[in-house]
Amino acid sequence: MEVFIEPIGRLINEFTKLPGVGQKTAQRYAYRVISMTEGEARAFADAIVGVKQRVHFCKICGNFTEGEVCAICRERDPSAICVVKEPKDVIALEKLHEFKGVYHVLHGVIDPMNGVGPNDIRIRELLARVQEGKVTEVIMATNPDVEGEATAMYIAKLLKPLGVKVTRLSRGIPIGSELEYADEVTLSRALIERKEI
Amino acid sequence: MEVFIEPIGRLINEFTKLPGVGQKTAQRYAYRVISMTEGEARAFADAIVGVKQRVHFCKICGNFTEGEVCAICRERDPSAICVVKEPKDVIALEKLHEFKGVYHVLHGVIDPMNGVGPNDIRIRELLARVQEGKVTEVIMATNPDVEGEATAMYIAKLLKPLGVKVTRLSRGIPIGSELEYADEVTLSRALIERKEI
Repeated sequence: MEVFIEPIGRLINEFTKLPGVGQKTAQRYAYRVISMTEGEARAFADAIVGVKQRVHFCKICGNFTEGEVCAICRERDPSAICVVKEPKDVIALEKLHEFKGVYHVLHGVIDPMNGVGPNDIRIRELLARVQEGKVTEVIMATNPDVEGEATAMYIAKLLKPLGVKVTRLSRGIPIGSELEYADEVTLSRALIERKEI
Repeated sequence: MEVFIEPIGRLINEFTKLPGVGQKTAQRYAYRVISMTEGEARAFADAIVGVKQRVHFCKICGNFTEGEVCAICRERDPSAICVVKEPKDVIALEKLHEFKGVYHVLHGVIDPMNGVGPNDIRIRELLARVQEGKVTEVIMATNPDVEGEATAMYIAKLLKPLGVKVTRLSRGIPIGSELEYADEVTLSRALIERKEI
């Protein structure tokens, strides 16, 4: 005799597909769904299907959008492009309300160990945007890890001959943290990239 | 300009309705759904709706079932009834493969502070089952907290005149905790060492 009846076991199994969700957490989520009204469960299910049906990639920047072209590409200053690995990086930057330009989502970084080469991410599309001539600065905002750095360097080398300014987010000790707890690589980078005050 | 487009924001909002899920976690879940295939998302949504449509309460014990009467009530020894607060407590006990009897899910405990009286939980149904005369032992397995103890005592007082043996899970379970989270050894010991009350 199975511990869970089939519909509950199936829902638990679906929840375990979410990142970081184990059996016990999935079980709690399933019980929550069972205690929802039929309307609430329907709304939840509709939101899941809806996100797949309505969310597409902006044909210019590659970010999520409902239409052909996203609101950022439609409304903002196209002279500065911020290059990121994934759509969620756009969210992180947009929360700052600091950057007024547009984005370019690579949908990955160059990672030869995992078989991802320059042609597997949206580098060609970035070059095409820059070649149109309206771009004056490209900000490389890939993650400060090995693949992110390598990708930034690779793209910078391709962009410089086009006469565009290429910058990179500064790396160093996080604001508000303590020197003592910074990891050695970060601290070392902060020392090398020290700035005159 | 909203940080999230509507369908993504809506799905994030739905995920925050799950227990213990905050904005950041909901966001990670939503991104996972976006990266699913349409078929995977559909299966997920179907499991949510399916659980609401197919899961009902057993008309005898009150546990989850797909039919009228659950598999435990259909197939197991009806002379011992284990009384629990919620369906998830049945799962916790079933995982032990220790108890051979049947269950009675109260769907709550007496909790005057929150306006829950004896008539608001399935006590009447329990008495009716015992009055049929086939029951020899009722094991009170409500949580070892104030409301759980009080409910066990209240029910025990009603059952004893019916000539049935009433036992309580032994206090191997840490006071103040919830049955669902007890480790299996402790829970198993508590079942074996149950005491008459």
